[in-house]
Amino acid sequence: MAAVVPGAGDARAIGVFDSGVGGLTVLRALRAELPGESFLYLGDTARLPYGTKSAHTVVRYALQAAEELVERGIKCLVVACNTASASALPAMRERFGGLPVIGVIEPGAAAAVQASRSGRIAVLATEGTIRGGAYTRAIGALRADAQVTGVACALFVALAEEGWVDGPVADAAAGRYLTPLGAAPGASPGAAGGAPPDTLVLGCTHFPVLEPVIARAIGQVIGPGVCIVDSAATTAAAVRTELAARGLLAPAGSPATLGFLATDGPARFAAVGARFLGEPIRVDDVELIDF
Amino acid sequence: MAAVVPGAGDARAIGVFDSGVGGLTVLRALRAELPGESFLYLGDTARLPYGTKSAHTVVRYALQAAEELVERGIKCLVVACNTASASALPAMRERFGGLPVIGVIEPGAAAAVQASRSGRIAVLATEGTIRGGAYTRAIGALRADAQVTGVACALFVALAEEGWVDGPVADAAAGRYLTPLGAAPGASPGAAGGAPPDTLVLGCTHFPVLEPVIARAIGQVIGPGVCIVDSAATTAAAVRTELAARGLLAPAGSPATLGFLATDGPARFAAVGARFLGEPIRVDDVELIDF
Repeated sequence: MAAVVPGAGDARAIGVFDSGVGGLTVLRALRAELPGESFLYLGDTARLPYGTKSAHTVVRYALQAAEELVERGIKCLVVACNTASASALPAMRERFGGLPVIGVIEPGAAAAVQASRSGRIAVLATEGTIRGGAYTRAIGALRADAQVTGVACALFVALAEEGWVDGPVADAAAGRYLTPLGAAPGASPGAAGGAPPDTLVLGCTHFPVLEPVIARAIGQVIGPGVCIVDSAATTAAAVRTELAARGLLAPAGSPATLGFLATDGPARFAAVGARFLGEPIRVDDVELIDF
Repeated sequence: MAAVVPGAGDARAIGVFDSGVGGLTVLRALRAELPGESFLYLGDTARLPYGTKSAHTVVRYALQAAEELVERGIKCLVVACNTASASALPAMRERFGGLPVIGVIEPGAAAAVQASRSGRIAVLATEGTIRGGAYTRAIGALRADAQVTGVACALFVALAEEGWVDGPVADAAAGRYLTPLGAAPGASPGAAGGAPPDTLVLGCTHFPVLEPVIARAIGQVIGPGVCIVDSAATTAAAVRTELAARGLLAPAGSPATLGFLATDGPARFAAVGARFLGEPIRVDDVELIDF
C-alpha cells in the first residue's frame, strides 16, 4: 500500500464491485459525480446472477471479490450490487476494518424517502434482495410509518442483459410484475392497504436501463405522478461525502484511470457492459481474473 | 468402489449433472425409461446459468461437479446440461477414463435428424450452446446436407425458472425469438435459404416446460407440421443402450434410490425443481454441497 500523506488527498482508485455488468450504471454515476477519481471495477460475471442465490453464498462470493480489489490497493469500496449490499456489508466491514465500504441500499432508501409524500414505497429488486428485507429495514429506519411493498422481478435482469429494454416482451413483463401495485378494486386512493405507492425504487442495478418501460407500465397501472428513483446518483453523492470527510479525495491533477476485472468472458463483458456504462468498453481494458 | 461381478449387473447409481434444475427434465425421462435404476442428481445451482459463460469456465465447473459424483461411486455419468455437453464432454471422458459419459447433444441431434424430412433444422438453445456450434456439428455428422439454424433464447431460461411458462410475456418472447425462422418475404417454400425449418430442437433442458408456448409461436410464424423434439427421451434411450452393452444395468430387485445434491439453496431447488421433474421434491432429500 502506498504511503498516504495526511491532508494531501489520496490518488488510489475507488473499487466498485458487482455480480456482473449491472453495477456499471453505478460506475457511470460515480464518474459523473467524481470525474477526478480513478476507478477499478470488478464484475463477478462467472458466477452471476447473485439475485437467486442464498445469502450464505452471496457473502462468500462478495468477500472473495472484495479481497481481490483490496489487494490491488483501493482506497474505498463501493458495493454496486443490491443483492450483495443487502447481505454482505457487515461481513465486508468486519473483514476490511478501516476501509470505507459503501453499499447501494441505504442511498436508495434515502432517495425513496426523500421522494415519497405518502410514505407508500414499492421496491423492485431481485428475489434475494426482496427476501432479505434490507430495503424495508433501511426505509423504515428513515421513516417509521413508511409502507414498503417488495416486488421480485427476476425477468428484468434477463431482459436487461438480452438488450430487450423496449418492445412487447418488456412491456408484458412490466405489466405482469407491476399490476398488483395498483389500488385494490373498490379501495379509495389513500385508504390504508388499498392505496398504491407514490414512489418506486429500482432496487437492482440492471433496472435503470428498463426505466422507460417501467414508467409506462406504472402509468397504466397507477396513473401519473409516481416517482421512480434509483440508487446510482445518491450512492455517488454518498461516496463523495465519505471520501471528503476522510480526506481521501484525489488531489487535483492526478490522472483519472479506469480499469475492469471480470471473472468470465472479457468480450461479453465489454459488449453487454457498454449498454450499462453508457459508453464503449475496450476488450483489452478488461482483465480476466479467477478466484 | 464396490467390487462388480461380471455379468451380474451393477446396482450403483447413475449420476446426472446439470447447471441447475433444468436437467430434471432429463432425469424424469431417465426414470421413465429405467425405473429399476438409482439416480444421484447434482445441480450446480450456485453457479448457474452456464449458458452465458465461456467454454473455459464451463469445463472447469463441469469437471468439479463430475468429480463430486464420481467420488460418490456412480457407474455412469449423464451430462444433462446442453451447455456442458457442448463444451466439456471430451475433458470429462479424458479425466474419468472408463466411466461411460453421455451428453444430451448427440441424442438430441439424432432425434432431430430422424424427425426432419427437409433437413432444415432449427436449434433453440442458450448463447453458449449456439456459439459453440455443437448441434450443427452433431447434426451434420448424421446428415451432411442438413441446414441448421441456431437461435439463442436466453430469456426462455428466466421464464422457465420464474414459472411464466404461459401467458403474454412467454408468448411475446417466443414470437420475438422465432419470427426470424419464418420464410423470408417473397421466398417460396422450399427455396434454398428462404425456406423455414420443419424441425425444431429444444436444445436446453429448461425449454421443454415452454413447449406449448413455442409450439403456438411456431404455428403462427411457420404454420402447422413443424416437429418439436427434445433430447430427454433419446438421451434416456442412449443411456439404456450404453449400460446394457457394458453389462451395467441394475440387477432385478435392487432398490431404486433417488438423491439430490445442490450447490445452493435446497429450498429453492426443491420448489423450482418440482416443476421440471414433474413431481414434488422433499427439501430433506436435497443435500447442500460446496466445491
